[in-house]
Amino acid sequence: MRASSELDRLCVVLVATRNPLNIGAAARAMSNFGFSRLRVVNPYEPAFREARSAVGAAELLRNAEAYKSVAEAVADCTLVVGTTALQHRELQHPLRTLSAAAALIRRHLGAKTGRTALLFGSEKRGLSNEDLSHCHWLLRIPAREEHGSMNLAQAVAVCLYELIRGPKAKPKTKSEQPLAIAGDLERLRALLFDALQSSGYVKRGAESSSQEKLRRMVRRLNLGADDAELWLGMLRKILWKLRER
Amino acid sequence: MRASSELDRLCVVLVATRNPLNIGAAARAMSNFGFSRLRVVNPYEPAFREARSAVGAAELLRNAEAYKSVAEAVADCTLVVGTTALQHRELQHPLRTLSAAAALIRRHLGAKTGRTALLFGSEKRGLSNEDLSHCHWLLRIPAREEHGSMNLAQAVAVCLYELIRGPKAKPKTKSEQPLAIAGDLERLRALLFDALQSSGYVKRGAESSSQEKLRRMVRRLNLGADDAELWLGMLRKILWKLRER
Repeated sequence: MRASSELDRLCVVLVATRNPLNIGAAARAMSNFGFSRLRVVNPYEPAFREARSAVGAAELLRNAEAYKSVAEAVADCTLVVGTTALQHRELQHPLRTLSAAAALIRRHLGAKTGRTALLFGSEKRGLSNEDLSHCHWLLRIPAREEHGSMNLAQAVAVCLYELIRGPKAKPKTKSEQPLAIAGDLERLRALLFDALQSSGYVKRGAESSSQEKLRRMVRRLNLGADDAELWLGMLRKILWKLRER
Repeated sequence: MRASSELDRLCVVLVATRNPLNIGAAARAMSNFGFSRLRVVNPYEPAFREARSAVGAAELLRNAEAYKSVAEAVADCTLVVGTTALQHRELQHPLRTLSAAAALIRRHLGAKTGRTALLFGSEKRGLSNEDLSHCHWLLRIPAREEHGSMNLAQAVAVCLYELIRGPKAKPKTKSEQPLAIAGDLERLRALLFDALQSSGYVKRGAESSSQEKLRRMVRRLNLGADDAELWLGMLRKILWKLRER
């Protein structure tokens, strides 16, 4: 996760959004990933009102700023990036895939050289040529050619995720349980063999090859120390019951 | 973009989803990123009907399969991964961040060792402990601790994006045995439970938590198909003997 001061330098700009659910969902994604600055340009007015007053609308949504034009919304930004689903149209701008774009945006955010605006167009038409003319360059999420048009809020979520997933984020994997020691595995193997022999599973005369097969099989389980202990307990109980007769 | 045959081996499994918009939006994200197999477990029935009959509902949504339980929905899968927003709760499973998880899933998809199920829980509660007990491990999207709960369809979009963004996974060099399908693991778990119950290992009143613990433990074994068969044979024999008395 990146420093919040860096993330605060990114403005998500929703242009001419129609659906209040999309404004709310975009705000939620921003909050999930630690971004706070939402700007809307000419939203369908009732949509914006509704989104802002929605139950659970975050501070973020209440603090969202409304602008009459893209020019005003990006006026204080030093990098303006547009999003597009298009691949083929004759574009006047450099077009970068999301992962390459995110690397550049991250560098810009980190360099403290001013704000970055990330523009998302309306649900139906995307960004207009006029909107695009305010952008330094464009980014595209690598969706399928046959179905490249994404849900607005999902597109926002994917872009913001790519921005925070970067190299700075430390993998937060939980440490798995330490592996079982060989002695426990061998005890486990012996108990299992006894249980199988008591059950008539092991053919007479095949004892030693069975021991080896079992040993290899137990090793393949790659057991953690806790799991090995659990297995030992279970097998002891089963064996005890088998011998009780 | 990856080969579509690889992507076809991933099943997105939505468990107990309430909102038809979320089912539709998850399907749209799947289509955007080239995935085709959608499974739903116990959806709120009107929600599923509505989503399926929605204008513009893709073939994908019409072909979605409905199941009564997670066990049935993942029965033909060799890797079952759950998604969670939790960071701190004491989890019984290894927890991986999305990017690390995606690398493993990609490798699994590329190795042609069977289907992968990616589970998403309900909007309110996420996956239950019972649901989680069917999983080999869990993944977490690196959202903020203070607001980790994502919109369902956005979470689906982000996970699928991460799966297709990466470099193509190299085929595993070592030829391992193909992994066991979840249906066999569930049979194994049931046999083991019966053997333990016959042996008096399972405390009265603790049956259901024991079932879950066993399920998780069996998943952690990461059994190959041949080994699963071997275990099934051993346990059947032991159980038969235990019951002979």
